[in-house]
Formats: sequence, structure tokens, C-alpha cells
Amino acid sequence: MSRDRLIYLPLGGAGEIGMNAYVYGYGPEGKERLILVDLGIAFPDMDTTPGVDVILPDISWLEDKLDRLEGVFITHAHEDHVGGVGHLHGKLNAQIHARAFTANHARRKLKEQGHDEGDVTICDPWPATTELGPFKIGFVPISHSIPESSALVIDTPAGRIVHSGDFKIDHTPVLGEPFDEDLFREVAKGGVRALVCDSTNVFNAHEGRSESTVGPNIRELVAASSGMFVATTFASNVARLKSLADAGEAAGRSICLMGRAMRRMTEAAVEEGILTEFPRTVSPEDAADIPRENLMLIVTGSQGERRAASAQLSQGKYFGLEMKQGDTFLFSSKTIPGNEKDVARIINNFSEMGVDVVSDSDLYHVSGHANRPDLEAIQALLDPQVVIPMHGEHRHLREHAKLADGLGRVGVLAPNGTMVDLAGNKPTVVDHVETGRTYLDGATLVGQFDGVIRDRIRMALNGHAVVALMIEDDDQVMEDTWVDLRGLPEAGRSRRNLAEEMERDLAQRLERVDRKTARDDDALESLIKKSIQQVAQEEIGKRPEVTVLITRLTAE
Amino acid sequence: MSRDRLIYLPLGGAGEIGMNAYVYGYGPEGKERLILVDLGIAFPDMDTTPGVDVILPDISWLEDKLDRLEGVFITHAHEDHVGGVGHLHGKLNAQIHARAFTANHARRKLKEQGHDEGDVTICDPWPATTELGPFKIGFVPISHSIPESSALVIDTPAGRIVHSGDFKIDHTPVLGEPFDEDLFREVAKGGVRALVCDSTNVFNAHEGRSESTVGPNIRELVAASSGMFVATTFASNVARLKSLADAGEAAGRSICLMGRAMRRMTEAAVEEGILTEFPRTVSPEDAADIPRENLMLIVTGSQGERRAASAQLSQGKYFGLEMKQGDTFLFSSKTIPGNEKDVARIINNFSEMGVDVVSDSDLYHVSGHANRPDLEAIQALLDPQVVIPMHGEHRHLREHAKLADGLGRVGVLAPNGTMVDLAGNKPTVVDHVETGRTYLDGATLVGQFDGVIRDRIRMALNGHAVVALMIEDDDQVMEDTWVDLRGLPEAGRSRRNLAEEMERDLAQRLERVDRKTARDDDALESLIKKSIQQVAQEEIGKRPEVTVLITRLTAE
Repeated sequence: MSRDRLIYLPLGGAGEIGMNAYVYGYGPEGKERLILVDLGIAFPDMDTTPGVDVILPDISWLEDKLDRLEGVFITHAHEDHVGGVGHLHGKLNAQIHARAFTANHARRKLKEQGHDEGDVTICDPWPATTELGPFKIGFVPISHSIPESSALVIDTPAGRIVHSGDFKIDHTPVLGEPFDEDLFREVAKGGVRALVCDSTNVFNAHEGRSESTVGPNIRELVAASSGMFVATTFASNVARLKSLADAGEAAGRSICLMGRAMRRMTEAAVEEGILTEFPRTVSPEDAADIPRENLMLIVTGSQGERRAASAQLSQGKYFGLEMKQGDTFLFSSKTIPGNEKDVARIINNFSEMGVDVVSDSDLYHVSGHANRPDLEAIQALLDPQVVIPMHGEHRHLREHAKLADGLGRVGVLAPNGTMVDLAGNKPTVVDHVETGRTYLDGATLVGQFDGVIRDRIRMALNGHAVVALMIEDDDQVMEDTWVDLRGLPEAGRSRRNLAEEMERDLAQRLERVDRKTARDDDALESLIKKSIQQVAQEEIGKRPEVTVLITRLTAE
Repeated sequence: MSRDRLIYLPLGGAGEIGMNAYVYGYGPEGKERLILVDLGIAFPDMDTTPGVDVILPDISWLEDKLDRLEGVFITHAHEDHVGGVGHLHGKLNAQIHARAFTANHARRKLKEQGHDEGDVTICDPWPATTELGPFKIGFVPISHSIPESSALVIDTPAGRIVHSGDFKIDHTPVLGEPFDEDLFREVAKGGVRALVCDSTNVFNAHEGRSESTVGPNIRELVAASSGMFVATTFASNVARLKSLADAGEAAGRSICLMGRAMRRMTEAAVEEGILTEFPRTVSPEDAADIPRENLMLIVTGSQGERRAASAQLSQGKYFGLEMKQGDTFLFSSKTIPGNEKDVARIINNFSEMGVDVVSDSDLYHVSGHANRPDLEAIQALLDPQVVIPMHGEHRHLREHAKLADGLGRVGVLAPNGTMVDLAGNKPTVVDHVETGRTYLDGATLVGQFDGVIRDRIRMALNGHAVVALMIEDDDQVMEDTWVDLRGLPEAGRSRRNLAEEMERDLAQRLERVDRKTARDDDALESLIKKSIQQVAQEEIGKRPEVTVLITRLTAE
């Protein structure tokens, strides 16, 4: 049968929070024309990705189908949706489509990587659409926690798909476009084949709260504070920046933005005409001259990032400013799971300074994602036949699919790599594609299974012993074999120097080595590793990683 | 002035959650007789302590005052209070005092480290006391989340101190001793100089909930489940184990305990006569033969520990048992900050198997620590002049001291190393002592600032380049210099082999080296490091750690 397929294939984001990358395709099997929705990053951690800078989705599947790729569409400017465009544009070389604010960021990212900013096309909101091959795609404004977030309406000959992007239902978002039910009712007309929908907050059963609810609370807190007032939030939450700055201004404080991301976001918002009324700010350099009770800093680093302004301020002077007893520090944010210890470190540092810290309070932060009631509401509005949960860990996707089933729709559980055909009577899984992660490590892309990161983790857990030895041209092992230890204690149970103990044991073993072994690098290496690990086990109860460097002298 | 001092000195636990170790002393300055209350551990993580097995408080201050140490008192058998006794008994060599259940654990720990079990004395509860030097010490039963937790009444010539230990106010704890207000009123008679008090839950403003509230919820959940039912909780929460097992039995299920800690805890509770009525259990080996709908497993690993039973079950077959669609997994526990990702990994694995996971629900878990209202209540009961917050991060201690101040008492903020004299009219900080952490790393104790762990972290972040070169006896550098890379990519920007690029660059530089440099190991090493890091920076945008091994050939 050669009917056309309408495929959905997540390459990232469906099985994790972060790293969003979703493929849609339409056409005969194997010849589908393709678009990619979002190209985000995920963030590394010491446990699994030490030293890595950024985690990217593995897009190999797409790389050998570039002739079929019509374009890339970015729903909004959060790093987990747009962060990969700079690093991966060289591989995809496809035109990027986004609304103005998102495009502003995408262009900067392309520029940073030496690409042409013209490779980003700015799109007007729906009902304007972009036609590419069999697709007609429109950006439908939807409320989230960053300006100009959009759902995508993807029209195909097999029906309409709505890709929600990240969203919440917020009728009073302080800044930018409120959630417009009439608009979504319009979208629903003529029928929605499938809703592909944000799942991150599916376990939260509470009603969603509007961005506008936090402003009055912040205003009250700032008004009641006497010393310096410092607030941190996600730099991309421009509405929150405005609420914070407005509260500072109302309390007669000068506003100072600190941290690169903070300035970038507000600049982009001003450039794109989104941020029109923002209190006048002072530079960090000038802030130090303002009496502390008249000053409000809005700073980066709400997740405890070690180099960001919050962490810097918690460690002492930063731009000539120093927090002290009587000052207030507000986390107008939520701690993302995994960052608890970094955030606690900052709070404890401030506590030692005598600074009052307000953190993890619902009064001063609301989520940008749809809770369960909002997920039910958008299904009711769009009335899709099929619901495919995306953006979430497996547990979120599963719960969201169950929710859809419970509402009488067809919930499809499709984690990364699951290719679903939506063209037939009912959605069908037609393929499983290999997906994964690629690590940007300094300037290099490293594969998840290359062993590079595994080796780093092993050195961190076990330490590293390095052995250098020489073999003379008559295949005699020379006497001076060196052992150098890194990440290992100097001495163990015997209290004797550990490296010297290893050298002693090695010397004894090497003395007895026959010529055949001495000629065989692998045999020597395995003998040496055994010696090192045996001594280590006895002395320190550990098995270090071992590197052996053999130099063979040749007669001249 | 030579009046006697009553000192309080936290060596661990006051500035962190974990690693509790508190010194009390009485006598003339510098001649105080001393006792140590608790000797716990903290747990390592990849961010700060990769490869470390256990974190111990640095007790150097105590080590050169052993002639003044009267004894060690352990409040309860949680690892952060008793976990260090085995590892540090060899250094302290002081008699350990504890109630029977706690002593049972302390003895096992001594035995494991080759010490004499007789070094643990079993104490009866207050009003029984132990007299040691100027101290009279009694164990006052207090409710917590492990059997036989105790507050200590420490009587000295300068007054009575109550050291709360970890506690909550629970009048119906399911198992063991309820919180007895009359007993604490008795303790309060004659006046309490200072209450040294658990601070971990000071930010929680809710009423504490009793252990007895979770049983009915668990029973309902188990009764409504159809497949296999598996629950995890803290193994030491013997009351919870009983609630879980009772719920299983009521639903007609056979109970199977899995995980070493689970068996140890129940054995100790049976041995000490605490656990008298527990449903009959089946062994893991026999469990596989029981129909899954008639089976309930109670397993270790509520914090996502990688080798524990929960993690094993989430990865496939374990003792012949395999979870599947229709089964239920209950976390009857709270995820401790820092463990979120490990717990999420397990939940997602189960989600992929189709298992229904119930987690982080207040219905099935209550905290063992005193919330703010309970902290207020115990102050009201004991009416202490002074309150010294202990066991908590700095932010907890500070908040707790503010709470005490607000209640008209003298709150003393005394983080680790702060020596407070409680003998005078008002508490005075009389000294600051150096404190810190010692790492048990395999079989060796490693200091926090020895550089061993720092080097491991650096290798994990930056990778490790190893260079071996030889110098001939005429101070000529030999040609075959080797570079070996670990935790670094094979190739960078130029796509050429990175180690070979480094060797090439090194060869060029070494060729030009004069005799003076060639004779100087330090000069050579710094030249080599520069070369390696420069090539690395160009090729891969990273600066690896570098180890240089120089071998000098000598004329025979």
C-alpha cells in the first residue's frame, strides 16, 4: 500500500525535560517531506556528564534526510527549545522560522557560531501561515513564561495537528499575549486530528495561577524591606522582570539588572517592541554609589549556577556591592529538581551574612506550564481525536496519555524515537528510531557512548594511576619505572608512600618477565595493571584507573 | 578568672543536615571534662566528593584531648548520628553509651571494624542516669522515626542541658514510645539552662502529623491494588515497616523484605524486643513462587540508591521477581534534597514497564522531625533560658534562633566550631575551633583539603593528558615522547588525532630546548604543560589536566 503517511517522531524532549526536537513528516513511506519543531538543549551535571557544556539531541536520523527537510520551526526562546540552533545549524542547514522575539535569539545564536543571520525567517502570528511542501504552518500565540510563545498549527492533507509548545492558560500574563480562548476555538474549527501537548506539570492537580498574581505580593515584600533588596528569577521571564522592577520603583528604589542573560533578554524584548514600559535602570558600576535602602538588584542565577550573579553576591563583593545584615534576597523562582544543593549553598552563604532569604514560596512565583486542569481545558477547547503527550519524562508522558484516555480521546505514549503515523483511522506506531544525546564538550561534539565521559566519571570515582616504563632494544625492561598518582591518597594502610609501593611491586614483577612478554605491549600492560590494582586494593581499598606508557628504545 | 565553664561545641551537624557530633564540657578553661554526643556520617555526592564512601566529621580538636573525654553518647541509630562510631572508635577509644536498640547497631559497627563490642554500654531510660566526671546523663525517650530515639538530659554543676536529638512530637507513633509530655514536664522541673534542639524542619509551619495517620491510607491503597505491590521506605523506620506489612497482611498478601538494611533493622528490633507483632515474612527466594497479586515486597532504596532493591527492580529481574504492567510501587518516603534525579530515574524506569508509581505523597509518609509548631511546643514544655539550634544548615539554625528569640528566650546561633560557654549569666562565644570533614575513601581517611578529591573533580571536568619523555645522559631529549589521553575526545577541530597533534607540537618545542632547560625537570614540565594545553585549547576548546613523567637515562 502506498498511501501517504503523516508521521510524528520525537528526537528529544519526549522522555526528558529539556532538549526538545520533534519531527513531523508527510508523504509516501520513506519519502515524507519533513519539518523539525524546536531544537533545544539540556543541561549537564556532574553525575552523568562532568565537564560537558551543553547536551544536544542526537539528530543523526535527520542528517541523512536533509534533502527532505523543509525547515525548522521554533516555538519560543527558552534554551530547551532554541538552544541547539547555533550548534546544529551547520549540520541541518535548513531555514529556521520563528516569531520576532524568538528569532532575535536564534539569530544571535547563529551569529555566534559564524552562520548567516538571514537563515532565520520571522513569522507573523496565525492566521498568517508558512507553506512548505505539504505543510501549512502557523504560529498561534499562547501564554507561557517568555514573550511570544506559540503553539503551532500544522496543516497537512491528512488533517490538522496542534503542537502546543510549552504553555499555560493565563488570561492576565502581565506582558505580552494573554491566552485567547476564541483564537483556539477558531483553530479547532474543522477539526483537530492530533494535539501534541506539553506534559511537564501533569502531576500538578491544582488550578494554574496567573503571572499577574505575583506582582502585588512582590510589591508588598519590597515595600516592607529596609536594606538592599535583591531578587533573582529566570532571565527569560520578562513579565516577572517587569513586576519586580515595578515593585522596586514603587518603593522608590533604583533598579539595576545584573548578569548577561538578564541584559540580553530585556534588550531583545525592547528591540522587538514587547517591553515598552520598564523603569529606568542604573548600571552595576553606578549602583554601588546608591544608598542600599534605595537600591534593588535583579540578578541571574536563580538555579544556583556557580558563575551567575546570585552565587557571586553570596560569596562577597560583586561589582563593588556586598550584601549584609538587614538586606533581603528573593528567589522569585522555583528550584528545578537537581539544583537543590546549589541553591541551598547560596541561601546558606546569605544566612551567614545575616541576609534574609525568601525562597521557594508560591507567593512570589508561578509556573509557566499547564497543570492538569489546564491540560483538560485545552483538550476541551481543541477537541482533538488524538493526544500525544510531549515534553516530559516518561512518567509525565504516561500520566498525560492516561489523562487523555480518561477524557475519551486516544492518548498515544510516544517516547523519543517512536514514529507514529497519524494518517490512518487510528494512530499507529510504524517505527522505532535510534535517538540519544550528543555532548558539546568545549569545542567538540562527543557521542553519548564514545567512552570519553565514561572515562572521566571513572577517574573521578577511582583516581588515576599512570605508569611509564622503558624497554631496551634487547627487550630488557629498564629499572626506572615511574608511577604517578592523581586523585589518590599519598599513603594507605602501611603508611608508606603509595606510588613507591607500586614501583617496588612493579620492579619485582618486571624483573621476572621473560622476553616474550617484554616484547608484547598488551601482556606488559595487563601485568602492570594487575600489579597496580593489587597494591592499591591492599593499601587503600580502591581500584584506580591505570594508564601505561611503554617506550621502546631502538638501537641507533 | 578561673571559674568553671560549661561549654557546647558542635564539630558536625550545626551547618549541615548529617554528620552530627556535639561536644559538651565542664570545668576550668582548658581543663573541661568532655563528653561527645553523637558521631554520625554524611553522604558523598559526585559534585563535591566523587568516589568517597562516607563523610565523617573532623574530630582533630577532640583527638588531642582524649585524656579529658569521659564518653560518647548516641541519641539514636540513624547513620547521621551513629554511622561514625565504627570508623572513629580507634581514634577516640572512649566508651560508647546508648539505649539497647541503638547499642545493637553501634556494636555491629564496632565489630565490623575489629573493635570490642564491649566498648558499648547499654543505658536504661531516664530517670536512670550515667555519672561521668561532672556530668550526670540520662536518656529521655522521645518520638522520632526510629525506635528508642532519645533526648539527653545532661546535668552539670552549672545547670541542666536538654539535648533534643532528632525528634517530633508524636503521641501515637505506632511502635515504641509516644511523646510523653509528663516526662518532659518532669525534666523541666528545677529549670533547664539550655535546650539544644533539632532544627531540620524549622521552615515547615504546618502541624506535625503522627506516624499513625499513614497506616489507614496505606491499607486502603494496598487493598485497592491488583498486581504485585512493592513499597519502599527508610529501613530504619520500623513503625512504617510494620504499617506496610500489616496493610499487606490485611489484603491477604505474603510479605517479603528485600535489602540488607531492611533485614538488619527488623532483626535488631526483634532482638531488642521492640518488634513483637510482625506478619510472617517469606524469603526473596520463595517470593517468586507466590502469585503476584498475593505478594507484597518491602524494599530498600527509597532515595534511589543505585545498588538497592528499588533500583534493581526498576532495571529488570531481581531475585527472580520482575515488575510489570498492573503492579504498584509505593514510595512511603520523602525524597531528600539532592536525590531527586536518582529517584526520578527509578520512577521513569517503572513507568516504562507500565508500573503505577505513587510517590512524594503526604498520604503515605510523615516526617520524623519537629515542624515549627512542635519546636514552639517543646520550648513551652521545657521552658529553657537558652535555645541553641543544632542539626540543620546555617539557614535552619538562623531561623530557629530567631524563633527562640521571638518566644522571649535567648537564641544562640552556633554553627560548627563555635564554642559557647553556658555557665555565666548569659551564653558567650568563647572560642572558634577549626572543624571540617574527613572522607573515608576506600580504606583510607582523606582530608577535605588534601587535594585528592579536588584532583578527581578536575580530571572529571577537564580530562587528563599524560606525557612520558626521556632525557639521555647527555641531556638530549629523546624523540619518542608519548601522549596518552583519558576522558578527552580523539580528535578536535582539525579532525586529526589529538594525541598525535600534541606529540607533534611537543617534538617541535623539545627540539629547540637548550641543555639548561633539559636538565631542569620543572622547566621541562611547564614547557610541556603549555604545549599540551595550547594544542588542546585550539583543537577542542578545553584545558586538560596534565601529568608529565620524565625519565633520565644514566650511563651504565
